[in-house]
Order: sequence, then C-alpha cells, then structure tokens
Amino acid sequence: MLIFLNGRFVPEGQAVVSVFDRGFLYGDGLFETLRVFNGKPFRWAQHMERLRRGAGFLKIRLPFRPEAWRGFAEELIVRNQMPDALLRLTLSRGVGRRGYSPRGAELPTLVMSLHPTPGALDSDLAGSAGSESGAPRRWKLTTGSFRLPAGDPLAAFKTCNKLPQILARAEAEAAGADEALLLNTDGFVVEAASGNLFWLDGETVCTPPPAGGILPGVTRAVVLELCRAQEVSVREANVGPEELTRQQAVFVSLSSAGIVEAESLNGRLLQHSPLTEKLRRAYAALVRAETD
Amino acid sequence: MLIFLNGRFVPEGQAVVSVFDRGFLYGDGLFETLRVFNGKPFRWAQHMERLRRGAGFLKIRLPFRPEAWRGFAEELIVRNQMPDALLRLTLSRGVGRRGYSPRGAELPTLVMSLHPTPGALDSDLAGSAGSESGAPRRWKLTTGSFRLPAGDPLAAFKTCNKLPQILARAEAEAAGADEALLLNTDGFVVEAASGNLFWLDGETVCTPPPAGGILPGVTRAVVLELCRAQEVSVREANVGPEELTRQQAVFVSLSSAGIVEAESLNGRLLQHSPLTEKLRRAYAALVRAETD
Repeated sequence: MLIFLNGRFVPEGQAVVSVFDRGFLYGDGLFETLRVFNGKPFRWAQHMERLRRGAGFLKIRLPFRPEAWRGFAEELIVRNQMPDALLRLTLSRGVGRRGYSPRGAELPTLVMSLHPTPGALDSDLAGSAGSESGAPRRWKLTTGSFRLPAGDPLAAFKTCNKLPQILARAEAEAAGADEALLLNTDGFVVEAASGNLFWLDGETVCTPPPAGGILPGVTRAVVLELCRAQEVSVREANVGPEELTRQQAVFVSLSSAGIVEAESLNGRLLQHSPLTEKLRRAYAALVRAETD
Repeated sequence: MLIFLNGRFVPEGQAVVSVFDRGFLYGDGLFETLRVFNGKPFRWAQHMERLRRGAGFLKIRLPFRPEAWRGFAEELIVRNQMPDALLRLTLSRGVGRRGYSPRGAELPTLVMSLHPTPGALDSDLAGSAGSESGAPRRWKLTTGSFRLPAGDPLAAFKTCNKLPQILARAEAEAAGADEALLLNTDGFVVEAASGNLFWLDGETVCTPPPAGGILPGVTRAVVLELCRAQEVSVREANVGPEELTRQQAVFVSLSSAGIVEAESLNGRLLQHSPLTEKLRRAYAALVRAETD
C-alpha cells in the first residue's frame, strides 16, 4: 500500500510525521473521507470546498496548487489498484513550537490514503439500477453521553478533534450497538458520530438544522438534493432523544456508507421505511452515474 | 536533542509516528506538561495521576510499568543536559483502523520531549527566597469566541483535542494579547487556553468550580494548597466575562509558567495585587524546595 505524503508516494512504513506535528500534539488539522468508485472520488468538489473553508477558518495554508490535489488522489488510486475504496485526506498544521499558539507553523502536512470500503454501500453499487439486491444491514443506534457545544462555529468543519465521537462510538459498541448519536448542550440530537441524522415524519424527511452545531456532511447535501429531485418534502427541525425514539424511521448519511437505516434506537425498534430504501437506491445510482 | 519514543531515545529527526496513529488522525490521546527544575519534574505524581485517570477514561492502556516512566523522564533530562526545562509527555492510542471505533488499537504511543522554558517563572526561581527579583511581565487577556461544553466529562482530562484553545489563543494574539479566556456554553468564563483562572474579591481568591467543565490543573491545586497554608480564603464561583472585567486583580496558573498576573482583560486594565505577588513567590519557593 502506497500513501501520499507531502508530494511523495511512500510505502506505509515510511508514511510518518514528526511527533511535533500539531496534528499529533493537538488534533490541529482537518480531514475528509470520500467514497471512491470506478476509480473516481465521488463529490470531490464538495469535499474540497469544505476542506478549503475549514483551512481558511483554522488559517492553515493549503499546500500545492489545489488543482493538483485531484491528480495526487487519482495517481494514488491507480498506483494502489484500488478503484473501489475510501479515500482519506488529512491536512494538519504541521510542525510548530510547543504551546497552543499556531505562530511559526508554516509547513502543513498533507496525507492521502486508501482504505477498504465498509461494505454498506457495496451491494447497492454492485447491483444494476433496477435489481433487488440484498437489503443491507440496518444499524443499532444509541444516544451517547457526550455533548457537543450548541452553535459551535468549529462544528461546521471536519476537524481532527474527534474524541467526543470516538467515546460515543465506544459507548455504543460496548452496548452492542453500531453507532452513537450525539446530543448538543441544548439537549437536542444533532448527528451521528460518523454522519448526519434523518428521520421520517410521515412522508417528510427531517434533519437537524446546521445552526445547532452539526457537521453538514457532503452526503447530507446529496440526500437533500435527492429529496428535491424526487419531490419529497424536507424539514429542518430540532429533536430530543425521547421524541426521536418515537419516530417511524431513522437513517444516517455518511460518505463511507451512503444511507444507512436504523434498526433500533436505545433498544427500541424502528420501522423499515420504503422511502429510506428508495433514497438509498437513488443515492447508489447517483454514485454510479457520477463516477461512470 | 533526544526524544523518548516508545522505550527508545532517538534524535529529533527520527522521532516520528505513523500517519495512522490515532493521535494524528483524531487527537485521540492525552498529554501533560511539567516544569523541570534542578533536573527534577515538579509534581510528577499529580501529573501522572491525572494522566492515569484520563487513560482510564479513554481506555488507553499505559505502556511500560508506570514506575518506569519517571526513570525515562530523568534519563531524558540527563541525556539532553536540560535540568531546567519543560517536559511534555504525550500518550496516544496508537495505530488503529480507519474510523472512530477504538477497537483494535492496542499499541499506544508514548512520547517524552524537553522544551525551553517560557521564561515567566525563571526570575522567581533564580532569585533566593527573600530577594526582590524583577517583576515578571503581566499578560494581556481577551475572552475568546469559542465555547466549551458546560459540564463536559472530557474536560477533566488533558486530551489532545485542543482546537478551541488554539483558535482562542490565535484570536488573542491577533488582538495583540497574550492569552485567551474561554467561556462555556452557559456563558461563564471557565479557564484560560493554557491554564486555570483566578481572581481576587477583596482578600478572597476565587476560581471557577470544576463542575463547569474546567481542566483542573496541577498548578491550580498547588495555588489552593498555598492559599490554605497562608490562611488566604478561597471560594469557587461562576463568573461572566463582564463581571470578571470589573474585578480588582486576575491571574492564571499553569505548569509551564506558574502564576501569571493579568495586566488587562479585553483592553480594560486590571490592578496589580500584592496577594498575587505573594502567591507567585510562594509558588516559586515551593518549586525550588520540592526539586532541591
């Protein structure tokens, strides 16, 4: 496996950063995870746009010409012969002096690596548009005990500060579940550790508003696009954990796995919805079409 | 400069970690910063206790026998001939699979490195107990725009998720100040980016309560000890930014610099207090005594 590291393609054992890289010291960086299908990263432009805005917010300079990044990613896919994979990009502030001040850290670190797909989207992507592929596994969800700061401006960016998500996921796994939902300090459920949250209110697709402090995912935006295209009504709304448990159907959107329906929330069974399934298939069809 | 890395002492250029170290990917780790004086780390036991509790909370295994850690630190100090320095310990979860789940990351990374002292405590430490050494520079403070989650259980540990602190510090520096104070989501000032907050109400030393979501610093505990020893009354209290600006005197406590008095908060001048100076000198005397 080759890794892209600051302009070079190196074997995994040589893909290393200084212990003084601020990514390692403080999580002082950003990342993106993209689904690669048919050798092409899905929604590259949207992921790059979020990374660029994040880098602007954190005042991390983008190394290389932005146009060159796509070439690096494509070369990485070809060299590793992994046309169907996940692509992770990490941009850290690089080596700096001890202490929180970012002053003097002028040489950012850029890493790109490929990873096996989690499988969730695979059967949909493999099947032809109209076929009945096997239904993918639904997720058991729990609500984690960690709170995200309501209205946090940092929440809009995919930063490398992910301990609340890690600990919430670990809580979920310890409870035999697949994924955790996170609440904000106002008590509303804002997102899943690894993706955005949706629920169905009748035929309306609901999702928490960005103002609550969510990470507005690229896949979330695609889901909203698909709803508009299919004339499904959409509403942004705050929801508490109790209220969410009483909904008919819940799903999570994430770049690695697309749309994943929830089987249960805190042990309470949720319905399977034909609308979720329709959106899931439409999502897979879009990935296939755009990477063709 | 030699760095301690997972049991070996290596030159700085070889002190590297994998780009898949979860410390680099997610800030999935903990750290401690200790003042080293006369070749000895000050309050080693308290720092190790906090790190141990943090590792227990994050479920990161402590590598090596805990008793061996002190030996590593002392060897590092001797080999680098830096008896007067800052010691940084970093413990990350090590390399794991892509994704938030900590499953499978079983080989933690332990790093120890020495750094120049910031100078703030140096004149006090150099002077004999009774001498009038030059007054150290006071800090200009600002209140940052980033909010910490009130009552966050993670706040009790010195994790490697420090973007709010980094961005608040960067805001402070952009405003010509030295350090930022951080508010929690309830609107109370909880701490400085790099240390704990104190203010004087008459002859009472006040500080925010741990329950608000502060990182209870080792130096904070020493300040409270010194107050008790000198029969100075202490009160834990919540304070808003406006109210804090109207206080007579404000100071910050941190392991790297000890007690640092504030010169101003958001541009408003604060008083110099003889009590702060007394505590500052007592702190330096204690560091000297315990590292003798």
